[in-house]
Amino acid sequence: MARVDPAKKKAVDTDAVFQDRLARVAQDTEALLDRLLASAPIDGERARPARLLDVMRYASLGGGKRLRPFLVVEAAALFDVPRQNSLMAGAALECVHCYSLAHDDLPAMDNDDLRRGRPTAHKAFDEASAILAGDGLLTFAFDILSRRETHPDADVRLELVSALARAAGLGGMVGGQMLDLAAEGRFDASAPKLGEQDVKVLQAMKTGALLRFGCVAGSILGKANQSQRTALERYGSALGEAFQIADDLLDVEGDPATVGKATGKDAAAHKADATHLVQLGGLEPPTSWSTAKRSNQLSYSCTHRRKWPQPRSAVLL
Amino acid sequence: MARVDPAKKKAVDTDAVFQDRLARVAQDTEALLDRLLASAPIDGERARPARLLDVMRYASLGGGKRLRPFLVVEAAALFDVPRQNSLMAGAALECVHCYSLAHDDLPAMDNDDLRRGRPTAHKAFDEASAILAGDGLLTFAFDILSRRETHPDADVRLELVSALARAAGLGGMVGGQMLDLAAEGRFDASAPKLGEQDVKVLQAMKTGALLRFGCVAGSILGKANQSQRTALERYGSALGEAFQIADDLLDVEGDPATVGKATGKDAAAHKADATHLVQLGGLEPPTSWSTAKRSNQLSYSCTHRRKWPQPRSAVLL
Repeated sequence: MARVDPAKKKAVDTDAVFQDRLARVAQDTEALLDRLLASAPIDGERARPARLLDVMRYASLGGGKRLRPFLVVEAAALFDVPRQNSLMAGAALECVHCYSLAHDDLPAMDNDDLRRGRPTAHKAFDEASAILAGDGLLTFAFDILSRRETHPDADVRLELVSALARAAGLGGMVGGQMLDLAAEGRFDASAPKLGEQDVKVLQAMKTGALLRFGCVAGSILGKANQSQRTALERYGSALGEAFQIADDLLDVEGDPATVGKATGKDAAAHKADATHLVQLGGLEPPTSWSTAKRSNQLSYSCTHRRKWPQPRSAVLL
Repeated sequence: MARVDPAKKKAVDTDAVFQDRLARVAQDTEALLDRLLASAPIDGERARPARLLDVMRYASLGGGKRLRPFLVVEAAALFDVPRQNSLMAGAALECVHCYSLAHDDLPAMDNDDLRRGRPTAHKAFDEASAILAGDGLLTFAFDILSRRETHPDADVRLELVSALARAAGLGGMVGGQMLDLAAEGRFDASAPKLGEQDVKVLQAMKTGALLRFGCVAGSILGKANQSQRTALERYGSALGEAFQIADDLLDVEGDPATVGKATGKDAAAHKADATHLVQLGGLEPPTSWSTAKRSNQLSYSCTHRRKWPQPRSAVLL
């Protein structure tokens, strides 16, 4: 028998565990959202109009890696939080993510026709329906967080509401989207080019804030102590940075069929992205697709030498 | 001295008290929103981008009767809730109301240029900014509700979050907006005309749900007992109905300069509105503007013979 390099074997196993657990969270999140977005109205609702439900389901079901719910579930697992609780918080976060995609794809925003390999919500339905579905999903996220199934303690649910609102709103994701449009010269063609720090803030808000919330939500659900929370916040921030770099590089070098959305758009729109940062740093632009995959691993190396609260966090490393 | 009809005198006084208290809530809500939407980021926010803040402030400050916050404050006052608490909940509700106006006015929705006598958000800024400002205001509403200043008890804040999410979302306001577009024949030109019950459900969701929440929020803040809650729910529902009738009639007969927005649009868009209901009932369409004002008093008569929890509710009658 051929000898197996132990280091190599370990790396392969970690990847398999990661893929397996990611897939399980994706499956569970899909089933949960499907149940939450059923046709029957619940207490406090008058009716669930069929077309609105259809668009909300189209925009949130049947696709996506469910990376954000995965972060919630795995971070919460560090503190022995029951999976049904963290899946609820993950579903809420995914609703916010999916709403932001539906609104981002609108003609007045990024004007995208393709998302997750399918027509975007306004293409499959119409603009008004996509706007309302986004509004409905954003609102629904807070409904989910407020439910007892998310956590038995009101304080915990309330902290999730507060943290998600700040991550998603004016000072988080929505703010980042506005900075992104401004950086394209959308409001002032003569706007000065952003510096490295500006691009980092933009990306930390636009993409980073929700990924960071995913990790932080785990610590809130788990009633973690301050140092554990800080560790997960730092992990979430680093992951957010790595994720955005990978996404930007995929836009430059990815194949639309593989990526599931139109590529090459950031450069055309003069987006303030990672490739812009590479140029700022005087480096050569990336030349292969594998660069993107590698940068997705940045976050792992960021945390690799850190001491984790419990050994079961291996899947996050 | 001329003799004064006592019934007439009483009516005049009630109206003056109503106007005075409405104006005070409007003033306090304006000041509170101005403070909440200050430029400095708060804990959990990275930055508050200037343009986004400008549009959010434009869409939420400097106009509006603040009827919804008024309902929260006055309903909460029935239970001796401190005014600073009910103003917070009222400000959250107003954020939801203002976001819905910004999105409703978009070209893909109702395509309105005028709101509260000023250009609509997408006219004063641009479409993308109006979309993001709406998203930001909706998100901000839940941030406000989650704060300790809204109520010292986490359970109460959480109940407000849940009730607002259901009133505003899929099974409430957003659902009603979708039904409204469908009733215009937006998605199917051959859609059958709505019956009286359909129009009532549509309006209860589109406009009624937030007004009803205003009243219910008062009972939540006041930890009211079940019969008190039910009374305020019924009051809120009746007020919502009356309000929508008045609004529809203003669209038929109002002067844009007085109403502060374009009129005559509902008929052009074949909206399912109160005038449609009047026709369904075989009645003559209303012929004077005063009909609208009178129908706004419907809610008062709905509750006039009810026994209220405490005498200080007079201003709501």
